[in-house]
Amino acid sequence: MFRHLFHLTKDGSATLQQQVREQISKAIIEGHIPLDLPLPSTRELAAMLSISRNTAVIAYQDLVADGYLISRDRSGYYVDPQIFAGKLRHTASDSRASEHTPDWQHFIKHPLASKRPLRQHQWQQAPYPFIYGQLDPNLFPLKRWRECVLDSLRPQAAKQWSSDHYDADDPLLIEQIRSRLLPGRGIWAQSDEILITVGAQHALSLLLTLLLNNRTVFGLENPGYPDLQRMAALTGSSVRSLQIDQQGLMTGAQLTVCDLIFTTPSHQFPTTVTMPIARRRQLLQQAAESNFLIIEDDYESETSFGSHPTPALKSLDQDQRVIYIGSLSKTLSPGLRLGYIVAPAPLIRELRELRHVMLRHPPRNNQLAAGLFLERGYHDSLVRNLREVYQARWTIMKDSLAELLPDSSVPPVFGGSAYWIESSAVSNSQALQQQAQQQGILLESGARFYSLAAQASTFRLGYSSIATDQIRPGLEKLAALIHSMKRADKM
Amino acid sequence: MFRHLFHLTKDGSATLQQQVREQISKAIIEGHIPLDLPLPSTRELAAMLSISRNTAVIAYQDLVADGYLISRDRSGYYVDPQIFAGKLRHTASDSRASEHTPDWQHFIKHPLASKRPLRQHQWQQAPYPFIYGQLDPNLFPLKRWRECVLDSLRPQAAKQWSSDHYDADDPLLIEQIRSRLLPGRGIWAQSDEILITVGAQHALSLLLTLLLNNRTVFGLENPGYPDLQRMAALTGSSVRSLQIDQQGLMTGAQLTVCDLIFTTPSHQFPTTVTMPIARRRQLLQQAAESNFLIIEDDYESETSFGSHPTPALKSLDQDQRVIYIGSLSKTLSPGLRLGYIVAPAPLIRELRELRHVMLRHPPRNNQLAAGLFLERGYHDSLVRNLREVYQARWTIMKDSLAELLPDSSVPPVFGGSAYWIESSAVSNSQALQQQAQQQGILLESGARFYSLAAQASTFRLGYSSIATDQIRPGLEKLAALIHSMKRADKM
Repeated sequence: MFRHLFHLTKDGSATLQQQVREQISKAIIEGHIPLDLPLPSTRELAAMLSISRNTAVIAYQDLVADGYLISRDRSGYYVDPQIFAGKLRHTASDSRASEHTPDWQHFIKHPLASKRPLRQHQWQQAPYPFIYGQLDPNLFPLKRWRECVLDSLRPQAAKQWSSDHYDADDPLLIEQIRSRLLPGRGIWAQSDEILITVGAQHALSLLLTLLLNNRTVFGLENPGYPDLQRMAALTGSSVRSLQIDQQGLMTGAQLTVCDLIFTTPSHQFPTTVTMPIARRRQLLQQAAESNFLIIEDDYESETSFGSHPTPALKSLDQDQRVIYIGSLSKTLSPGLRLGYIVAPAPLIRELRELRHVMLRHPPRNNQLAAGLFLERGYHDSLVRNLREVYQARWTIMKDSLAELLPDSSVPPVFGGSAYWIESSAVSNSQALQQQAQQQGILLESGARFYSLAAQASTFRLGYSSIATDQIRPGLEKLAALIHSMKRADKM
Repeated sequence: MFRHLFHLTKDGSATLQQQVREQISKAIIEGHIPLDLPLPSTRELAAMLSISRNTAVIAYQDLVADGYLISRDRSGYYVDPQIFAGKLRHTASDSRASEHTPDWQHFIKHPLASKRPLRQHQWQQAPYPFIYGQLDPNLFPLKRWRECVLDSLRPQAAKQWSSDHYDADDPLLIEQIRSRLLPGRGIWAQSDEILITVGAQHALSLLLTLLLNNRTVFGLENPGYPDLQRMAALTGSSVRSLQIDQQGLMTGAQLTVCDLIFTTPSHQFPTTVTMPIARRRQLLQQAAESNFLIIEDDYESETSFGSHPTPALKSLDQDQRVIYIGSLSKTLSPGLRLGYIVAPAPLIRELRELRHVMLRHPPRNNQLAAGLFLERGYHDSLVRNLREVYQARWTIMKDSLAELLPDSSVPPVFGGSAYWIESSAVSNSQALQQQAQQQGILLESGARFYSLAAQASTFRLGYSSIATDQIRPGLEKLAALIHSMKRADKM
């Protein structure tokens, strides 16, 4: 460890002894040397730094005198624990602050952190986590995933994935997506029409970077996915909020000015309504007439439990105007960050090059393990399992809500992993979110999904993250809270 | 499988029987149905699609009549192998082409694919792969990596990494980088000063996106890293080529107009020269005076085998102007895509948010496995091993080149994994690269690293990818080729 800690220079700006003292004291103050670890002996230090033993002895003596080190008989020099007593520990930043420190506001061209939404990092500790985008960890198919990972670590396999692939994806994963996942959505694609991404968010980021600039108009559903506004802002594009109704995105005049639109036909995000076939055909026809492209985010299509899932918008697309996004985050794990884009080959070629410039490719070891997982049918049986679990949870949600919150509206189509609620009993869903959190109930206010005129009576209850037997007790507590807040409003 | 292949709609645009025929024939033409797999029986098909058995029977009979299917006694319907005889196989794109197909040139705002450089995907098959950025697969520490991966798959660990982390990194990996990797470079950082990236390329992409726009000037070394020009172009920034000499990046007037500069002080990329301490101090002073930021790419610093590695530029930085980039690609594996940024906390906060919008975070399972690999000291011993191997290879390179190509210039400082050569015997290194490739010798012409006035006598020989005992034979063949090309020039 110590060999790495110190670097002496011989350019005359400080004596060797000064440098030794300065570097050791800095390492102590910053907490890099454990209290119970002896420092190198003076002989070792001298050899390590190619300095005279005398220089080392004097440096240590000075450090003892200054209170940094103590000398213990026979066992050498140690950090003096007193050095931290009554002192604020310095941080690296503090000790480097100077008048020449840059003004970050000047340098940061796209500040985003101030618009940062609230995130529930510790959701697993809450008793009633009705949150979205998380999977119940008990549903993760650990044994089968481990088997695939182990097989990806055989010597020949590891030789393949461990090298630099410039811009290429794992052929097995591509083939499995092509022949196993996509046909289930009515989509027939060739290998050169598929690109793997670091999750669906990365797919969107690539597409917006490639297709938008400060002369384009990007249309997105309202309510919709809030991160897309922030992504589009990076490209300089103008953003247009698009109206939805009970059939999802509305066609007509609002679309004609757009160059690119984002839509979620299988379950509108976040309201979960499904776009019927007739509306899908209208949308495609309008795309051809008004010359715009469509990004279809088909999240959660696999876990839809309707008996006749509607085919993807892309499967109806005769004009190659639909760019399809899928991911393994909603089935296998969001922590793995694996998604994909299906689009015409000329577009995929450009996206592949952009991906190369941005980060080369998603990690190849995970691509291979996921390919094996799909090939063995483990994803199919995972999806079957999730579908059963979600259907059972959805039924409990439906029955409990009908009983406990009878004045909440019920969306016309079901599936996926969340329930969108509009309740006349709720007058301020942000306040509800905060008060519910204090009782261990995690939900999302609908407000953050609206770019225009947020509806304060809307909120979302996810049920992929919460254990089935916690749903009813959680909803009982929530209904009691909503009623007590309503009574308080009236007083 | 078949259940996923077909989706019928009831909106009246085509009869059910037409839809069945259309979808089955399309699936056959596109090769989605294996020749040896029986199609569902008419009874199964009827049940699967909720159609009458009669509809199914007629659809199959029509498909037989049209030459798509054959009926085999007792075992059912199969794809007719004749369907492919003498036919060009349609692709999904062909069958979808229409007059409404978009004009991609109109939609793609940042075309990159046409500027795509040559990539050596199949380098492992060449006998003399002197290529850069690849690791000899025999040096990958497979057994120890497997151990760490297995431990990352224990139930409690998997529960942690498999969920959605919004924007957070694995705390163990951050701590290991902070306390084990960075002190070796003279850098002391706090946890909130480190961000994990999907490789060093991703680190650069994040930084350029955040810090550049169309009113900024980005300075980069010439010769230098070609992808950076393409990355900067995405931001609209002007790019300024900066001169280097035998001490690396030159300070002075050329830097004063820049807002951000990119430099590679430990081994200038691609020439490998090292910037001395005095030049580093000048550079930092100028950054403060002219108010610019510096990105220090410290690639290959770990495997430097000089006895006294120069401390990182960042370790000398009093003003927080240096943004440090490191990666595990040059030691562990480029296929894993793990890199990191060290920078002041306010900048990391913004970068974290930008990363969240772009792709959330690098896969958490790999972060945890890499953290365990570092914690157990396996990375330290890997680096020691690589250093020994590279030093041996470097010595063979030096001795062989001195003997075989005595008129080539030798760079003043050594280390890392490549040899930059300027030889008066080479008049066109691009032609050399092509002819060498035909003899199984993979090298890189220097031309692609220059943004201005490429020097045709320069090329690069990597030695991280080639087995030690292949170096001398490869250089003998290369020298013979160079001399034969020179003789041909003179005739």
